[in-house]
Formats: sequence, C-alpha cells, structure tokens
Amino acid sequence: MRITVLRLGHRPERDKRITTHVGLVARAFGADEILIEGRDESVVESLRDVVNRWGGSFSVTDGIAWRDELRRFRDSGGKIVHLTMYGRRIDEVIGEIRSCERIMVVVGAEKVPPDVYDIADWNVAVGNQPHSEVAALAVFLDRLFMGEELEKDFGGRLKVIPAARGKVVLDRGL
Amino acid sequence: MRITVLRLGHRPERDKRITTHVGLVARAFGADEILIEGRDESVVESLRDVVNRWGGSFSVTDGIAWRDELRRFRDSGGKIVHLTMYGRRIDEVIGEIRSCERIMVVVGAEKVPPDVYDIADWNVAVGNQPHSEVAALAVFLDRLFMGEELEKDFGGRLKVIPAARGKVVLDRGL
Repeated sequence: MRITVLRLGHRPERDKRITTHVGLVARAFGADEILIEGRDESVVESLRDVVNRWGGSFSVTDGIAWRDELRRFRDSGGKIVHLTMYGRRIDEVIGEIRSCERIMVVVGAEKVPPDVYDIADWNVAVGNQPHSEVAALAVFLDRLFMGEELEKDFGGRLKVIPAARGKVVLDRGL
Repeated sequence: MRITVLRLGHRPERDKRITTHVGLVARAFGADEILIEGRDESVVESLRDVVNRWGGSFSVTDGIAWRDELRRFRDSGGKIVHLTMYGRRIDEVIGEIRSCERIMVVVGAEKVPPDVYDIADWNVAVGNQPHSEVAALAVFLDRLFMGEELEKDFGGRLKVIPAARGKVVLDRGL
C-alpha cells in the first residue's frame, strides 16, 4: 500500500515541532511521503536530514494547495482517510482501509475545514478524546500495518542496535 | 495498573505544545497522572482544562525534582519504563511490563541524561527510528492496554458520539 500523509493547518510560528513530529512519525511508521500546507523550510530541512541519515525513500513537500491535492488524489482512484476525534472507531474501519491500494491520511491542526469531513472516504477516530495528531497518526499506522512497520529496515547510514542500556548505533558510512 | 508519566526536559520556550500533547496522550490512553520537569503554568492549565471538560481523574504536576521522583518511585516498589529509540523492542518486553502494579513511564525531549537509562527497569523502543515522544507514548500505552484504553468512558461533561461525517458532541451539563 502506498501512503501519503497530508498535514493541514501548519502555522510556522507555533506548529514547527508538531509538524516535524507528524513527518517523523509518518516516515517511521511506514508512510511514503508527507505534503504540508504552508511553507516552512526549517521543517522540510529537518525531515530531509533524518531521511539522509536514517534511510528510506520518504519524500517531503511543503506549500501545497491542499484542496487540489485531495481532489486530484480522489479523482485518480485513491482513498482518503481523515483522522479526527469525531470520527468512527478505528477498529470498525481499519480492515476496509487495509484493502486499499493508495490512501491519503489527512491530519489537521486545531480547526479543520468542514469540507475535509465531506471529501474523506473515512473519518476515523483513534479514541474519541482530545489528544494529538502525532499520536493519532502513529496508532493509525501501527494498527494498519499490525505492528510490522516497527521491524522495517530503512537501510540508512545510521542504524540502532536495540540495547537494554545505553545507545548502540551502527554507522554504515556512505 | 497505575501509570505515572514523567516528562523530562520541558523547555517552556519551545516544548509547550509537545509537552501538552504528551499530557493529552497520557490521559487519553489511560495513564493516571503526569509529572513535568520545569514549571509551565500554561501547559498545566490547558491539560487541567481538558480534564474538567472531558472527564477522568488525570492529575498534572509541574516543577518536580525528577531524580527524587524516580528514586522514590523505585524505592516504593514501582517499576520504571524509559521510552527511547535505543531501547529493546517493545514486543519483547510488553508482556513483562503488563504484569506490574505501578509503572512510571519516562519520556524525554532531545537529550536524556545517562542515569535515566541506568535507573530504568526497561529501556523500551517503539521502533528504532527517530520519531516522537508523543507517538512513542501513545503506541506504548495502546500495546500495554491492547486497545481497550480507546473504549474507556471518561464520564466527563463532554462526550463525542462517533460519526461517519461531521461532529456530534453530547454536552451532559454540570
């Protein structure tokens, strides 16, 4: 399955770190790319820097016109999943979503425009309590891949060897 | 099981939103309290505000002396789990951790002092790639409770009724 994450409502003055975490989670939990509403060179750079050091082919694009992206994605046969605390329970829909070939996972900041709820094929809640788009994306992808995403080898220059104490990092050179 | 989350390395000038997300995730995914290193009235207030509106008995304390808290917790028989990308694979240890009565889950910001790795009963990795302490905490608690935490009724004034489209919120008054 090919997965695009669409990050809505990024405001550079306050969302830098949250959007960076959304991007890092997208990559680490098996998505293929992130599209970011708004321009933020520092977020893009820090995400690309992680890809360069830690591997994988994750791509990062900012400054996108999100309504166009959603429409184009839908019209080309992709399915749209909007993560929201108001949506249906994840357990009820994850099986259906798992059978798709391409999905776009939309994660908003505080206010998401109503048309996102309408264009989405599924509005999905990871719990119906207020928490975090970073957490929602992580748990959604973890359930989607049934935990297998955590075993993926990214083939990067740097690789952690799991350890009971301290830090063991393999540097495979360039 | 009683769960305390300990948030290390909070810097009010840059971590406000990430620490708020850590706290919201702790509550929404079934932890009982959060202790925050450093003082930050705005983070504490926004977390307590969510508890007041959305329910549960989650408690929030900032300005704690974290080494004292860790030592006291350990000496009173509690077990310490440190979430780090360098730790052991979550699947290998979650069963053992699930049998504890009380755990303290430590989540750091960028740099975590080496003694945290030493005092922890388990250093646990939610994947060995760089991502987010918000995501790590969410997936850790989701695995710990095997998804049941998402079904918890918090008994708050506000309650979401899961919906395929739009927002349905029950306001149960005071």
